[in-house]
Amino acid sequence: MRVQATSRVSALKNIATRLRIDCVKATSEAGSGHPTSCMSAAEIVAALFFSEMRFDSRDPQNPDNDRFVLSKGHAAPILYAAWAEVGFFPREELLNLRRIDSDLEGHPTPRLPFVDVATGSLGQGLAAGVGMALNARRIGAAYRTYVLTGDGEIAEGSVWEAANLGERYHLDSLCAIADVNALGQSGPTMWQHEMDTLARRWSAFGWHTIVIDGHDVQAVLDAFDEARSTKNRPTIVLARTIKGKGVSFVEGKNGWHGKPFKKGDEEQRALAELEKQFVAEDEPAPSPEPPPRRASRSEPQPAVLDPPGYKLGDMVATREAFGEAIAKLGQKDPRIVALDGDVKNSTFSEKFEQRVGDDRFYQSYIAEQAMIGMAMGLASRGAIPFPSTFACFLSRAYDFIRMAAISHVNIKMAGSHAGVSIGEDGPSQMALEDLAMMRAEPNITVLYPCDAVSTERLVVQMAYRPGPAYIRTSRPKTPVIYGPDETFEIGSLKVLRQSTDDVATVVGAGITVFEALKAYDELKATGISIRVIDLYSVQPIDSVMLVHCARETRGRLITVEDHYAGGGVGDAVSGAVASAGLTVERLAVREIPRSGKPEELVDRYGISAKSIVRAVRT
Amino acid sequence: MRVQATSRVSALKNIATRLRIDCVKATSEAGSGHPTSCMSAAEIVAALFFSEMRFDSRDPQNPDNDRFVLSKGHAAPILYAAWAEVGFFPREELLNLRRIDSDLEGHPTPRLPFVDVATGSLGQGLAAGVGMALNARRIGAAYRTYVLTGDGEIAEGSVWEAANLGERYHLDSLCAIADVNALGQSGPTMWQHEMDTLARRWSAFGWHTIVIDGHDVQAVLDAFDEARSTKNRPTIVLARTIKGKGVSFVEGKNGWHGKPFKKGDEEQRALAELEKQFVAEDEPAPSPEPPPRRASRSEPQPAVLDPPGYKLGDMVATREAFGEAIAKLGQKDPRIVALDGDVKNSTFSEKFEQRVGDDRFYQSYIAEQAMIGMAMGLASRGAIPFPSTFACFLSRAYDFIRMAAISHVNIKMAGSHAGVSIGEDGPSQMALEDLAMMRAEPNITVLYPCDAVSTERLVVQMAYRPGPAYIRTSRPKTPVIYGPDETFEIGSLKVLRQSTDDVATVVGAGITVFEALKAYDELKATGISIRVIDLYSVQPIDSVMLVHCARETRGRLITVEDHYAGGGVGDAVSGAVASAGLTVERLAVREIPRSGKPEELVDRYGISAKSIVRAVRT
Repeated sequence: MRVQATSRVSALKNIATRLRIDCVKATSEAGSGHPTSCMSAAEIVAALFFSEMRFDSRDPQNPDNDRFVLSKGHAAPILYAAWAEVGFFPREELLNLRRIDSDLEGHPTPRLPFVDVATGSLGQGLAAGVGMALNARRIGAAYRTYVLTGDGEIAEGSVWEAANLGERYHLDSLCAIADVNALGQSGPTMWQHEMDTLARRWSAFGWHTIVIDGHDVQAVLDAFDEARSTKNRPTIVLARTIKGKGVSFVEGKNGWHGKPFKKGDEEQRALAELEKQFVAEDEPAPSPEPPPRRASRSEPQPAVLDPPGYKLGDMVATREAFGEAIAKLGQKDPRIVALDGDVKNSTFSEKFEQRVGDDRFYQSYIAEQAMIGMAMGLASRGAIPFPSTFACFLSRAYDFIRMAAISHVNIKMAGSHAGVSIGEDGPSQMALEDLAMMRAEPNITVLYPCDAVSTERLVVQMAYRPGPAYIRTSRPKTPVIYGPDETFEIGSLKVLRQSTDDVATVVGAGITVFEALKAYDELKATGISIRVIDLYSVQPIDSVMLVHCARETRGRLITVEDHYAGGGVGDAVSGAVASAGLTVERLAVREIPRSGKPEELVDRYGISAKSIVRAVRT
Repeated sequence: MRVQATSRVSALKNIATRLRIDCVKATSEAGSGHPTSCMSAAEIVAALFFSEMRFDSRDPQNPDNDRFVLSKGHAAPILYAAWAEVGFFPREELLNLRRIDSDLEGHPTPRLPFVDVATGSLGQGLAAGVGMALNARRIGAAYRTYVLTGDGEIAEGSVWEAANLGERYHLDSLCAIADVNALGQSGPTMWQHEMDTLARRWSAFGWHTIVIDGHDVQAVLDAFDEARSTKNRPTIVLARTIKGKGVSFVEGKNGWHGKPFKKGDEEQRALAELEKQFVAEDEPAPSPEPPPRRASRSEPQPAVLDPPGYKLGDMVATREAFGEAIAKLGQKDPRIVALDGDVKNSTFSEKFEQRVGDDRFYQSYIAEQAMIGMAMGLASRGAIPFPSTFACFLSRAYDFIRMAAISHVNIKMAGSHAGVSIGEDGPSQMALEDLAMMRAEPNITVLYPCDAVSTERLVVQMAYRPGPAYIRTSRPKTPVIYGPDETFEIGSLKVLRQSTDDVATVVGAGITVFEALKAYDELKATGISIRVIDLYSVQPIDSVMLVHCARETRGRLITVEDHYAGGGVGDAVSGAVASAGLTVERLAVREIPRSGKPEELVDRYGISAKSIVRAVRT
């Protein structure tokens, strides 16, 4: 126990009261928000910000600062109040909560410099915290990571995925605090105040588990002390709290979730009660202690790689080229890390593990939500993570991906085994909606290379382009069609065949580029010319060239994709050329496919050369 | 312990050996598949099918049959071998495994009559099993539900969500068996053979936990006996097994996942070893026992509801009309059930709970994957489940939704709080990619009503349309614009304003219908007429009417949607009119939005009447 802890108690109590007052005022002024969810956490937040955490309150992004993730994002007002209390911005700002011209949004986003990852979709903060703790190891920083969760969100499986991985990686710099206020949005939480039931679960998952009264400041401080001295495993502090604590007429009452006190009498009654809770202080209000300086400040430069080592005509699956590319990149840039969901021998991320080593390769096991969440945490602290799995299983983490887009973090996702061309494993293993899923997010870069050279070049491009990105790779081997010096700009495309007599532009991507090239040869033999495009950059997309090509080819555009019709390449191209008044004919998978040989399936679902030839001829 | 169990052991051992042989032969013939993952489970499957389960082997869908879910779907060959062994189809069929003309796919799908839900995306089977066990209660059946999982998939959070709910609902008719063979796809599983570590987790989650040697037939039988006599909570049998058991040169070896024995020498060596494992039998091979008859065979008819009780001009949020509609429907049809993720007071599914009662309202707490998985299990056994939450949080369950589409089960999903029009809560609570996500699946019906009457009518329609469906509802109150007798066909649309002078067709859905109507009034005042469409059915979509309207309005189509541009209403309409050579101008949200008032946000992100007027005028 720290010597100063006891004498700090009354000062921290008063800070907690001030935080409560600020939350009441801000939400009443906004006319919406979750004051009662803030009030249960006031002592925890006060103790964290004014006693436990080491951070430079004027520089929230200092690489040595302890990290704080508010997983229960709806308690945003108390996060904002804490940063006002440390002096990062004027307290009056809090009254702009939830206004369109304020960054103090309803739930925290990284528009605010003290927010690393957006929260508000429950159950995501702990995985991000695992990623941040792993990052401390990567950069040799001493910072600790604190994650404040609600008790309702502990029902999310993603929390248990993160719990497993926190233990697996022995993250003793990670401390989660569950604000167990026993009430969810619509009623009691699953375990309410059964602290033993909760403790049993966390202990079984290997966490050091401490149960406390979350309104007892001394107990909170002691728990943090104990967490800090616990080695080799993470700690969870299960804090029994009262929702709405501090205002008698809402304390522990159902029906007050997400409900501010009405301005006027109701708010005034609440504030009057809170004002009475200030106590005499036996020392001045504490200030946050700055962290010891330990993390490196040097800014690594983007790596420049040797040209891809493939020869024209080599048969290489793009998934294998992906593995090669991240391995090459990882060997040159220490920020590059890789995460796997037990498919490294299929995605070829094992090349990274073999050549870069274990310490930057994180095995997430079969837990895709945690994999993406960890990547978000790593990215938010300066790493450039490449989480990869079968593309279809990224759908498991779509809510995390959505939040990664809102966070605009540098996560570089890779999905292999796209489409029906995987063959015999059948529909459960085929990604046929991943382009729709990724394209929907307006700030996710979506790449879909067809050969090994373009894959390697695009992996490097995506690594250093700010924000989230996705690369889609295929299972079958495809021939290398680009020379080692060919360059690939994101937002551009390649015209592979063209003549002045072209009767249509066929837009392929991934394996369908080769179907388009086959169709070209077949049609050529009968005297018909088509233009063939490799649309390796699906988002952003090269509207100008698409329109230009279409206009040169009688206005005809035909897309062909190993993806369902909704939301994929066809929709992307169609949107891109709409303002020019052009329409698109779309060849895509239009029903739930089945098992079979790759070539049989590509043909059966209408995306083979045969279908292209037919479409051109019609 | 059952008297016959001991004398059955040798017969069951031989069945296990035959299953192994069948799996080796089928996968070798196919040239792909997962024989070693089957071999670890052979005794478990033999004991289940030939001693434990009560089912009519000629009628897999008999409502009294015990249910079996192969959560480790990659072990499909052993499921197929078991059904061949019980005589449901000829053993020779197994050699058609994974062929395009066979329903014996790489992973099980309900194309096969003995498969309830498709598996192959790991970690999903247990939630489906919870749903099936709940369904037994609903229909008063005595069937038990068995779920066979791998150990690798236990890392999926969804398993722990289902574990929580299995306990919460005291499902003693549910028995999970974990085939702990310690090897995943790319390496050892997280806990390998640490049986205690696994047992600690399941016990902490409240399950009756039995650890056995999964190759000891008597131990397997005893465990099932113990499970059957365990009351008030589900059982997990943690079976320590050896991957590839039975063939010495692959037993417990890494690198043999998803790898068949090569035809010829390798396969023959494996088969020779297995053939030697047959033992003398002390009784003839057992046959499955049929179940006692208990579930009702009566087929309920679709309910016919009184017309919606709204008056033109009433202000009602579509989310509230959704709650009203499922409550009305649930009161008339016992198959209708509802599931919630702790937001019933926002989605208004609480109306169902209040009026239909607890026994068909399943609280999933904040665990959306389990919610959808449970709904899949319920639907596969005859219920018509309406799982609902905020639309954005359905993204949490996208992989389950994908598998529900592959399963073509009758799940009727509802997502509220669509788009920026939710206002101050900010982007984490706004669904802006749900249409893209749902539309991508070719067999999901996607509905998006704008008023209370159409919502109620469409809820009834979706309930009785076979297959998965999704309805998107909004937070703000909107005026009732349809009379109580108006009918709504899925795949159709409503033309709300039209004249012979229309200069453009504006297609709205949900809240943007009212923006379009406002734009209509504004333009009308300046002498410009537009046609206004309510596109309540986004998938299937009324291409004919869209083309017809566009042609009557100078070929101009403008879509406006409270959704991101990728994959939503604009893409849907564009795809629908492409073959007519028409293009679409799309008003949609094109960046990550922020907090603010609904009307401010609708305006700022370019989907308000103002933007429509500007687009029409351009």
